[in-house]
Amino acid sequence: MLTFKSAIERINQKIEEELKEVQTKEPAGLYSPIIYTLQRGGKRIRPVLALLTYNMYREDLEKVYPAALAIEIFHNFTLLHDDIMDDADIRRGEPTVHKRFNENAAILSGDAMSILAYQYLGNTPTNNLQGLLQLFNQTAMEICEGQQYDMEFEDRSDVTVEEYLTMIKLKTAVLLACSMKAGAMVAEAPAEDAQHLYDFGINLGLAFQLQDDLLDVYGDASVFGKKIGGDIIANKKTFLLLNALCLANSTQKEELERWINQPAPNREEKVTAVTQLYNELGVKELSQEKMEDYYEKAINHLNQVKLNDQLKSNLLLIAQKMMNRDS
Amino acid sequence: MLTFKSAIERINQKIEEELKEVQTKEPAGLYSPIIYTLQRGGKRIRPVLALLTYNMYREDLEKVYPAALAIEIFHNFTLLHDDIMDDADIRRGEPTVHKRFNENAAILSGDAMSILAYQYLGNTPTNNLQGLLQLFNQTAMEICEGQQYDMEFEDRSDVTVEEYLTMIKLKTAVLLACSMKAGAMVAEAPAEDAQHLYDFGINLGLAFQLQDDLLDVYGDASVFGKKIGGDIIANKKTFLLLNALCLANSTQKEELERWINQPAPNREEKVTAVTQLYNELGVKELSQEKMEDYYEKAINHLNQVKLNDQLKSNLLLIAQKMMNRDS
Repeated sequence: MLTFKSAIERINQKIEEELKEVQTKEPAGLYSPIIYTLQRGGKRIRPVLALLTYNMYREDLEKVYPAALAIEIFHNFTLLHDDIMDDADIRRGEPTVHKRFNENAAILSGDAMSILAYQYLGNTPTNNLQGLLQLFNQTAMEICEGQQYDMEFEDRSDVTVEEYLTMIKLKTAVLLACSMKAGAMVAEAPAEDAQHLYDFGINLGLAFQLQDDLLDVYGDASVFGKKIGGDIIANKKTFLLLNALCLANSTQKEELERWINQPAPNREEKVTAVTQLYNELGVKELSQEKMEDYYEKAINHLNQVKLNDQLKSNLLLIAQKMMNRDS
Repeated sequence: MLTFKSAIERINQKIEEELKEVQTKEPAGLYSPIIYTLQRGGKRIRPVLALLTYNMYREDLEKVYPAALAIEIFHNFTLLHDDIMDDADIRRGEPTVHKRFNENAAILSGDAMSILAYQYLGNTPTNNLQGLLQLFNQTAMEICEGQQYDMEFEDRSDVTVEEYLTMIKLKTAVLLACSMKAGAMVAEAPAEDAQHLYDFGINLGLAFQLQDDLLDVYGDASVFGKKIGGDIIANKKTFLLLNALCLANSTQKEELERWINQPAPNREEKVTAVTQLYNELGVKELSQEKMEDYYEKAINHLNQVKLNDQLKSNLLLIAQKMMNRDS
């Protein structure tokens, strides 16, 4: 059985091999933004999850790489187009594609990247390509829906906590879930196992995103990798802010809204003041409880997968790592 | 057997039915630009070709609609994103999606539209989904390559006639070819027939695009639907212009380049002068010959399809219509 570390190595090696192939394609203007995007790495968590899930059932790993790579390529395509929509300058420490190249290149190479993902998916040796394609399509569409909600929430002042949870489920959790279900499907795992692995991924993804929101405010600046309080400065409607707005009394609500509406606040003052309000309102604890709740549900689904604990140890380890992180 | 007219009616009816389904989906902000795009119509030539090709082999038409609609939706997705890249204001007499909504909506709804196309494709009842998906993926990628070449040609002064023909093959011809091959594949037509129908589509597509270039200069303004000479004004590197640049003597080349480089020419004067040069150089005839050459090749491939002439009459009729048009 693969270790987590060897799974990452294999995925990275596979991607490198495939990029050599992509490098030979013409026109270079279409393919070089794709290579630029995929070479910059990232955690490769999704293809690793697909690989390790598959490996719980089978040892002939070659069969799962096409689907694993399809998911990673699709994920990077969504980041590329999201960066245009958010007009983001930097991704993984380097200029985003529309800054490094230009916006048309980012649109078109993004489109080509999503098609490339479908090309890999179509190369999966499986008797159930229709089922795999359906899962992938549904997930892909949900990610678009999640991005749409995320953009709409920026301009809305009445977003509910429930709506936020739906949005992060669509934008983040479904692709983690899809990675594991796809791995299980290619391995011809029992359908109930595949569904439990999917639900494991959904709940883990939700817990992961809540953790992300928490780290942004309560993380250790020296290891977090970006400035603490970015979400507060951007008035991002996170689980913390939405709950704070719900729980605040009129004085607290007034103060919170004053900070939100202030056009050019002092960064440090705003972060300190809003964090202070979060502390008063106990939204950190609320968020931790919700996160632990999702985590427990996730583990519960993993427990119901009909394999021995040894085989499930990799996924358990990843889940634990995702919850005990500083960045 | 369906007539051409009844095929269009059936496709339009199917699209209307499907749009009713799309209208129920949330978030509306994601789906309404898709509905807006698909409702505006267009000639629906690609799904009609898929339907009529299928109908040469089988009468149970329901089976081919998913693939036919996938192709039409994908085609409209490419127009939507192309319009952003070209910053076009109008499409089919209405504002383009990025003008009517906004650019982010156009990017994201375009992405969702391409996924919607794959959803339809995945619903095709076929024993050869892998083959169908491969055809679709290859075609989709080639369309991106064609668009990339088209954009690059704008900034290049050394585009060759051969490069231009490759570009229009990728940007236009392959999807017409794919429409017919997909129809044949879903009908489980013999592989050689499917390939001849594909090659029929490629050659017909090339002839069609050359006809398009000709109509832009030599069309009848009263029926053409847009102003004559649009390509000349935009310095579009068409078959006519590229051949003119090749064949011109030094005086003619100088005049042609003077018109190309003039920052704000009088429209009518430029169109008249460049058309005059085209006439002197005989590029109209050259273009007509090339077009007829492709058309002949197309018909040759259709002739090799192992069906009786009666069954092939619809495709022959469409080919003739596409060549004898004013707009």
